[in-house]
Amino acid sequence: MAEAEEGTLPPKEDFSAWYNELLWRAELMDVRYPVKGLYVWYPFGFALRRNVYSLMRNLLDRDHQEALFPLLIPETELAKEAEHIKGFEEEVYWVTHGGTSPLDVRLALRPTSECAIYPMYALWIRSHADLPLRIYQIVNTFRYETKHTRPLIRLREITSFKEAHTVHGSWEEASMQVEAAIALYREFYDALAVPVIVSRRPDWDKFPGADFTIAVDTVMPDGRTLQIGTVHHLGDHFSRTFQIRFEDAAGQQQYAFQTCYGISERCIAALVSLHGDDRGLVLPPVVAPVQVVIVPIVTGKRKEEVSAAAAGVGRRLASAGFRVRVDTRDIRPGAKYYYWEMRGVPLRLEVGPRDLDSRQVMAVTRLGEKVAIPDESLEEGVRTVLDSFISRLRERAGAHVQSRIRVSRTLPEVTEAVASGVTLVPWCGDRGCADAIEEKTRASVLGTDVRLENCERPEGPCIVCGREGKTALVGRSY
Amino acid sequence: MAEAEEGTLPPKEDFSAWYNELLWRAELMDVRYPVKGLYVWYPFGFALRRNVYSLMRNLLDRDHQEALFPLLIPETELAKEAEHIKGFEEEVYWVTHGGTSPLDVRLALRPTSECAIYPMYALWIRSHADLPLRIYQIVNTFRYETKHTRPLIRLREITSFKEAHTVHGSWEEASMQVEAAIALYREFYDALAVPVIVSRRPDWDKFPGADFTIAVDTVMPDGRTLQIGTVHHLGDHFSRTFQIRFEDAAGQQQYAFQTCYGISERCIAALVSLHGDDRGLVLPPVVAPVQVVIVPIVTGKRKEEVSAAAAGVGRRLASAGFRVRVDTRDIRPGAKYYYWEMRGVPLRLEVGPRDLDSRQVMAVTRLGEKVAIPDESLEEGVRTVLDSFISRLRERAGAHVQSRIRVSRTLPEVTEAVASGVTLVPWCGDRGCADAIEEKTRASVLGTDVRLENCERPEGPCIVCGREGKTALVGRSY
Repeated sequence: MAEAEEGTLPPKEDFSAWYNELLWRAELMDVRYPVKGLYVWYPFGFALRRNVYSLMRNLLDRDHQEALFPLLIPETELAKEAEHIKGFEEEVYWVTHGGTSPLDVRLALRPTSECAIYPMYALWIRSHADLPLRIYQIVNTFRYETKHTRPLIRLREITSFKEAHTVHGSWEEASMQVEAAIALYREFYDALAVPVIVSRRPDWDKFPGADFTIAVDTVMPDGRTLQIGTVHHLGDHFSRTFQIRFEDAAGQQQYAFQTCYGISERCIAALVSLHGDDRGLVLPPVVAPVQVVIVPIVTGKRKEEVSAAAAGVGRRLASAGFRVRVDTRDIRPGAKYYYWEMRGVPLRLEVGPRDLDSRQVMAVTRLGEKVAIPDESLEEGVRTVLDSFISRLRERAGAHVQSRIRVSRTLPEVTEAVASGVTLVPWCGDRGCADAIEEKTRASVLGTDVRLENCERPEGPCIVCGREGKTALVGRSY
Repeated sequence: MAEAEEGTLPPKEDFSAWYNELLWRAELMDVRYPVKGLYVWYPFGFALRRNVYSLMRNLLDRDHQEALFPLLIPETELAKEAEHIKGFEEEVYWVTHGGTSPLDVRLALRPTSECAIYPMYALWIRSHADLPLRIYQIVNTFRYETKHTRPLIRLREITSFKEAHTVHGSWEEASMQVEAAIALYREFYDALAVPVIVSRRPDWDKFPGADFTIAVDTVMPDGRTLQIGTVHHLGDHFSRTFQIRFEDAAGQQQYAFQTCYGISERCIAALVSLHGDDRGLVLPPVVAPVQVVIVPIVTGKRKEEVSAAAAGVGRRLASAGFRVRVDTRDIRPGAKYYYWEMRGVPLRLEVGPRDLDSRQVMAVTRLGEKVAIPDESLEEGVRTVLDSFISRLRERAGAHVQSRIRVSRTLPEVTEAVASGVTLVPWCGDRGCADAIEEKTRASVLGTDVRLENCERPEGPCIVCGREGKTALVGRSY
């Protein structure tokens, strides 16, 4: 359904142009919907989204339950938590009319669901036996973005926001849940071969109404960071607002402690951007809509024999559980290679007359490695190649991110570093100094308590004021 | 999370009270959300919803592709098709503000997605080679209902609307797709053991903008019908409005022909209502969140031995692919039976000391049949019992619906029949006569061309005017 297969992708070096064009050429998103900031998922993109969110569900379902709360939040509920509404009031969409009648109470399209969920939690939670409670939902949420919008990254309808909301008996238990959520997000991104940097957002950048916010960022090909997950310790702010109380073991009424954490379709933006190359998408097998494409190399005489062999290979792999496509279209093999490379298929199997004779298939990975797989060990051979493929992706992406992290001890060094990546600097913790960094380098203090292996952690005098500083992550973010 | 397990359900005879109370007691929906017509899916209800929609996806994925279009439709697009907007304008929710700014163009929350999808189809479709196109999405849609709302049946946020939209080269091909969609819906409802009556809606009741509408209804326990699916032949109305054209084989530009068809969460209302009984839900195994619950009957001495055996049975069945729960809670077995019966679990296995001695488990279905299953053929035994369970459900529900269908040849007979079901009458086809039926019996002509096996089809003089009539379905609907 995308336009003709002609022309080529801009080089990935020109990241913004590459990204925008890849999205429609690989049939992930169509940007031509007639409202700014709203996009359409093509079937191929949707299949990728399904697999990504199925991975997410499998992780969450270990100890969370999925539920579903309404989209529309009455203004009266949204206004209950003062900090929270202040944080969102400029970007909420308001429903004011039903048919031709004005509504008595305006309804917000959820920008996030605390104010839809917590009134219900107040009804559901009675006793310490009801805790911990861990629920999540995957829903569309809305932000009236006035900044430049960008598919999967900055949208007005976030079609796939996974938000989890947990309730606990103490501040410490909620803290442990924060750590559990970070571990879960690490596992999720590791499965996608997306390297992450975990840090604690500065106080002025935390979630409105939270005690603190831990963020998960990655470094995009152009060196800018993309926030791809956040975990918030909510303390008892919301439980006091919404009266979420429980009877403790001693029979006393106590306010509960809460956390919430979310990941949006930015996870897909990250994997698309980090792994893709000049020829298109490169997808981790675990989420690729098509994991193996089989291309029959049909030449004159042995056409039927080759076609039958290709179909047979397809059947064997499908029944072994692989997502397979046999491309029988009547176009030349080169056009098929181009088509499936654009769509990021991890492995291509070529079946030609010579392969029949030698009882093997030629396997070519999306990263260009070639290996012959003998017929008799087809399934095992494919599994081995795909396993080493995801390791290669993990290495490549890890090396990319690692190469974009520098240590800076002066502001000019920061300016240089953030032109192509992020940087670690010693910082005293004061907002004034963070503002000075931003003013001089157009980069922000993204976080402290940076969790990153194999990295020097600069401490010592603050890069601005010279007072005692601790390691902070600085970069330009999407 | 539901309130205490005390008290009992109203008898199913008192259907409305039974339905409302069952929804929260079985933890399907919480109706206490602070906006009329919006409801919350509890985790257990959501698990049922997941299974039902996964069944639906499996059927559709055979020859449809899933995609996702935005929720917000600009007023300018919605207004393009005159009949369509007229059909929906009284029940559309309007977004008028983003933050504190009024929007230039008001945005509708989709009541259905023709006007979001078809502008994209106009871009996607170029040639006959692009046809047929069969796409579906599962999304939340909105209706500003002024009538009495009811969970899963009449809502303001339909959280789970599955809508398919297809495009074809000719009116005939679109007609064939209408038949294919009906067959698909039959298969879906047959899997859920929900009997359906298929008929063609009268012209004044068809989808706004359609050539004709085929509806799928069931008969609820109180005798009222519930529309649980519709299939619309759109002709070329929308393709002319949205300029969906293709180049045919002869190189000529042609307007395309379209169909659309949808099923909402009413499918869950139907299965809950038809199968449930005075003790709660009764779920078809294919969608039951828990298919088998294992209750250890632990008595003094052999407690550990019994617990270990119950856990072992759980593991065996889980690895055979069943959705299993071993209920190890420290409450008496009777309370566990009550709890799982309310939640519709098809099969309960009791494991006690005597069962250990006789190397068997006692299986009790949700319909009360008891059978001992020998240890060595556990998996096979469970499968057999569940297979016959769905057949029993199908028989019961089929017998219920069959018993609620009568033939009437006079208006007093209609009045009597529709007090507890539906009726087939000869009708001339005129709106005037349909209005007269409605006025005198408070029941409507639901459809013609009624597809129903094992049923007399009254023809002959119209029940109102005496002119030549054909069989029509008459009933009171939700």
